[in-house]
Amino acid sequence: MKRLIVDMDDVMADATGQFLAYYEKEFGVRVDRAVLHGKGEGEGFPDNHSAIAKFPYRANFFRTMAVNENCQAIIENLNRKYELFIVSAAMEFPQSLVEKLEWLNEHFPFLSWKQFVFCGSKAVVHGDYMIDDLVRNLERFNGEKFIYTAPHNTHLNHFERLNNWNEVAERLL
Amino acid sequence: MKRLIVDMDDVMADATGQFLAYYEKEFGVRVDRAVLHGKGEGEGFPDNHSAIAKFPYRANFFRTMAVNENCQAIIENLNRKYELFIVSAAMEFPQSLVEKLEWLNEHFPFLSWKQFVFCGSKAVVHGDYMIDDLVRNLERFNGEKFIYTAPHNTHLNHFERLNNWNEVAERLL
Repeated sequence: MKRLIVDMDDVMADATGQFLAYYEKEFGVRVDRAVLHGKGEGEGFPDNHSAIAKFPYRANFFRTMAVNENCQAIIENLNRKYELFIVSAAMEFPQSLVEKLEWLNEHFPFLSWKQFVFCGSKAVVHGDYMIDDLVRNLERFNGEKFIYTAPHNTHLNHFERLNNWNEVAERLL
Repeated sequence: MKRLIVDMDDVMADATGQFLAYYEKEFGVRVDRAVLHGKGEGEGFPDNHSAIAKFPYRANFFRTMAVNENCQAIIENLNRKYELFIVSAAMEFPQSLVEKLEWLNEHFPFLSWKQFVFCGSKAVVHGDYMIDDLVRNLERFNGEKFIYTAPHNTHLNHFERLNNWNEVAERLL
């Protein structure tokens, strides 16, 4: 069985949507997702950048993220075909650890805690395939790398691109 | 720089000592550590085995473990020589996630959160050397394996044995 490593934020979970929602609630401005395209992580918002950087430290920021469209059913199928691990760089935000575990248990009850990895650097994990939105996570990986489209990576052409979960299914199922 | 993977419970932290202390506090019986030698994890206590299995779910069980003798100074030196990762199978006990992170930050302030990995299965990590007290963690590792002596592994002869942190230093520094 080949090993597949899948990221959470902006791959399984709509982290960008959470930033947009928190920004609107805090500053009353609905920023269009397309405005963020090609900008760095957390960049592209019109103002209040230091406040945005603090959103991930708030209680429930990670716990209440939406699941990306079609992710659940496709992960369930991938889990039958691959040795699947969910690997998230959660260590930077201590309160995210339990929130991410609860989020996974709620939305992916068919996965086991044995399949979850919360780390700082992903350099330590190995496998056959990795799906991630961040070049820094992909570039040290030993296997085949797929970049999952997020606003902050639309301008990059480093790895094979998967734009949504249907494309993940087409490529890997 | 070679990559070294080090376990927490019963390697850096005195997990066995914590079980003995909780047992004494709960049941008024001081069990000698040597009684546990050659017994499975959590076995060897005279009675109350189902209660013992619940100790790790209690608040502060992981947060208040003692650091094993000489571990801090030797880890600090290993951290200069190796690409060091602390890898703990913490996912089984959700409340342990934050407790383990706080424990590492308190006792090993010279390490970065980028070096910490909390997982279910350690099969997903790779490196050059692994120090662990559990055969199941070591046997799927790709690099060189060292079993760190704990009561539940004294009867095993699977891997090169390190009995204490001074022996870790002699072997790896």
